Amino acid sequence: MRSARNLQLNRNGELVHLLSTEGLPREQLLHILDTAGQFASVSDREVKKVPLLRGKSVFNLFFEDSTRTRTTFDIAATRLSADVYTLDIGHSSTSKGESLLDTVANLSAMVADIFVVRHAESGAPYLLAQHVAPHVHIINAGDGRHAHPTQALLDMYTIRHYKPDFSSLVVAIVGDIRHSRVARSDIHALRTLGAAEIRVVGPRTLVSADMVPMGVRTCHSLQEGISGADVIIMLRLQRERMHGALLPSSEEFFRTYGLTPERLQWARPDAIVMHPGPINRGVEIDSRVADGPRSVILPQVSFGIAVRMAVMSIVIGNEADP
Amino acid sequence: MRSARNLQLNRNGELVHLLSTEGLPREQLLHILDTAGQFASVSDREVKKVPLLRGKSVFNLFFEDSTRTRTTFDIAATRLSADVYTLDIGHSSTSKGESLLDTVANLSAMVADIFVVRHAESGAPYLLAQHVAPHVHIINAGDGRHAHPTQALLDMYTIRHYKPDFSSLVVAIVGDIRHSRVARSDIHALRTLGAAEIRVVGPRTLVSADMVPMGVRTCHSLQEGISGADVIIMLRLQRERMHGALLPSSEEFFRTYGLTPERLQWARPDAIVMHPGPINRGVEIDSRVADGPRSVILPQVSFGIAVRMAVMSIVIGNEADP
Amino acid sequence: MRSARNLQLNRNGELVHLLSTEGLPREQLLHILDTAGQFASVSDREVKKVPLLRGKSVFNLFFEDSTRTRTTFDIAATRLSADVYTLDIGHSSTSKGESLLDTVANLSAMVADIFVVRHAESGAPYLLAQHVAPHVHIINAGDGRHAHPTQALLDMYTIRHYKPDFSSLVVAIVGDIRHSRVARSDIHALRTLGAAEIRVVGPRTLVSADMVPMGVRTCHSLQEGISGADVIIMLRLQRERMHGALLPSSEEFFRTYGLTPERLQWARPDAIVMHPGPINRGVEIDSRVADGPRSVILPQVSFGIAVRMAVMSIVIGNEADP
Repeated sequence: MRSARNLQLNRNGELVHLLSTEGLPREQLLHILDTAGQFASVSDREVKKVPLLRGKSVFNLFFEDSTRTRTTFDIAATRLSADVYTLDIGHSSTSKGESLLDTVANLSAMVADIFVVRHAESGAPYLLAQHVAPHVHIINAGDGRHAHPTQALLDMYTIRHYKPDFSSLVVAIVGDIRHSRVARSDIHALRTLGAAEIRVVGPRTLVSADMVPMGVRTCHSLQEGISGADVIIMLRLQRERMHGALLPSSEEFFRTYGLTPERLQWARPDAIVMHPGPINRGVEIDSRVADGPRSVILPQVSFGIAVRMAVMSIVIGNEADP
Repeated sequence: MRSARNLQLNRNGELVHLLSTEGLPREQLLHILDTAGQFASVSDREVKKVPLLRGKSVFNLFFEDSTRTRTTFDIAATRLSADVYTLDIGHSSTSKGESLLDTVANLSAMVADIFVVRHAESGAPYLLAQHVAPHVHIINAGDGRHAHPTQALLDMYTIRHYKPDFSSLVVAIVGDIRHSRVARSDIHALRTLGAAEIRVVGPRTLVSADMVPMGVRTCHSLQEGISGADVIIMLRLQRERMHGALLPSSEEFFRTYGLTPERLQWARPDAIVMHPGPINRGVEIDSRVADGPRSVILPQVSFGIAVRMAVMSIVIGNEADP
Repeated sequence: MRSARNLQLNRNGELVHLLSTEGLPREQLLHILDTAGQFASVSDREVKKVPLLRGKSVFNLFFEDSTRTRTTFDIAATRLSADVYTLDIGHSSTSKGESLLDTVANLSAMVADIFVVRHAESGAPYLLAQHVAPHVHIINAGDGRHAHPTQALLDMYTIRHYKPDFSSLVVAIVGDIRHSRVARSDIHALRTLGAAEIRVVGPRTLVSADMVPMGVRTCHSLQEGISGADVIIMLRLQRERMHGALLPSSEEFFRTYGLTPERLQWARPDAIVMHPGPINRGVEIDSRVADGPRSVILPQVSFGIAVRMAVMSIVIGNEADP
């Protein structure tokens, strides 16, 4: 069996699944960003649709709830003219005890082209990619703490849009690094694109030293972490952490790591501020920063549609190795 | 900042949002009804679609549950060839603490054209209309006890269909006036169209005297209220009122205010009976009336699709003042 | 009033509703299977759509939850280019006390062409078929313990695909026959198509003698039941039965009636194994059989789309008697 890393590409090096930014070659990553650039203009047209996926079936399988991410895939697929089917898995046969593989085998038999999968268990999209037919494509929309590759790709698109030269960039990722699949996927993509320095910033309970082998610098002081940074990616602080043993309180977090206009001055004057959303105003980010001139949070959302259109339009033309 | 009243129109007097029938000028109201008249025939065609909103994105944001109203907007937008996205807000990021404005800002960044919003808080659609970009349109699908303008417009369409001359009409609205956004929106529209007399009819607990300044006559006897009426609009009695302090019981309400064939004879012989639905048979209306020859309840539903198509097709072409 | 049996056909013998395989004439049944054969190839095309239902409205009314069946109808209608509206009835006006007939009357007023109805009460689709307008069609997607005609039709399609000559076939249906609408609908269809022998197989608590008048042979031993069978239809054992008084346990059921590769040898060597899904691995069927060479469970799913497309495309052209 091929390694999970190679499962995304066929023997011609073409993308057949998008499972992770880890192991995604630089040329593939750039190909996605370039293709997204072409789609970014589609949203500005009077008629926002292109017929690339006409007659194709995209199944949204969200085993973990996320209206926002699901909607972005729904919009992206619809703008490509695909037929989109959203399965509310909480209510479906899986609750009758059917396995994930059986669910996908059944949907495949109804003729599916793309499965967009979010799952609480790390590796679930890999499992599916190993079992579907060669013409069926899996896109990971977030699996456990493992990966969230389309978020990372839209982050890369956003960074490149504002800061085209990665080789000189200092990027700081701030917050709950430990539980963040976004952080993990961003780090892999940033390394592939050759970012000069990647810092992960947060309290010791949320930033573990085991990130160091990934080629990042760990900082437990916000000032140290964002000093001279070109890009600051603020992560969402999950509500469950605030009530757990890992954090004293959300007020305490804001006092120590919350990004305010005053603290933002530690970064470079032209630094951009990003956030995967939804934001917690007054927890990890001050409203004056979120809504301020350095924030590119809403452009991230727009670019996210283009990036997801790009990924779907690329995989649909490729076939996995038999 | 413009007043809420003027928020619906741009400086050319064109409709950019539909928030309320209050302050909606007579010519705009008639323009919507006339446009709806053209769409009413679309539903009779073999292929029930027109391409007016092709490539446009309509987001159904129902913070308050209503399968029926949501479905009518879904159908109306689909018949205009729009792409419709329905967000189950109960499960979405708002439950993660994201604000209404942030949710809409994010969806706008995904490129939205129309937001159809139902919300338990009066004024929520106004708040949104004040913040969206000039080319984005808000349609109020019911906010708190405040307004339900598309219901009022379909009511006006229905009345005009059967009784073209408003200047001679006696219209009685019967039931829980106090909590009814439908009653409020109907009264504003009826006054704008110059109805001769508007009566609000119900027990003192459900019909407050503060309606008098709206130019209506309050009646606490059903006989007085519908005597000589041309149009009777029966309101749905909400289940929660039946168990509250405001009403003794649903049986008691039916004995006093329920519309039976016998009581219907108090009205004009050609009176029409309307209801926004869903009806409570045997509570506010007898089945023999609901299903009888004077009932226009099902035509109201049909006209509702045409009216919502009209509103969407009108706002899409207009731009708010910068 | 016409009998329920004749409600499906107009006076020209054309199909206007699909309510049951009971009373469905042989020529109509074959017409559906033949039409499905034409649609089976649509799923293999690059663009999987035909414009037969363009501009038509199909409403999925699932009063009983079934993501899988609902999705197959959604896919079938979408591939015919219909507009599909799915109503989550659990959250809708029916929970506000609106009756089934009022719900459908209202949706009909919005101009509906086809209602796909699943309901926990036997006969609900008949009730609707008696009340809708002549150009509106009802498709039963499962009512109580009564009927599941599209499942039976896809089962017949599958059998005919592998075993074209029904007159020589021995078909065994195994499991909880008593509560199974699939078994009932299969038996009627098999008799109409002239199957040589139909056996119902299971414990006495789940196979009642009252099936004998339907022309079946009851067997309480699996070996007796499947000996020499050409077709074995394994039914899903409902979880609620396992905890009830009707069955000792799922392990016990598997020991006695579970289909293993060893037991499958009792059947004819070229026997096919079917299951309506979702399967309970290790309860009614061993994984080695479900995934083995005699299993046609996944082809059943594929054929199910074609059969549902066939039913919808046939009824849409026919009109009920006035």
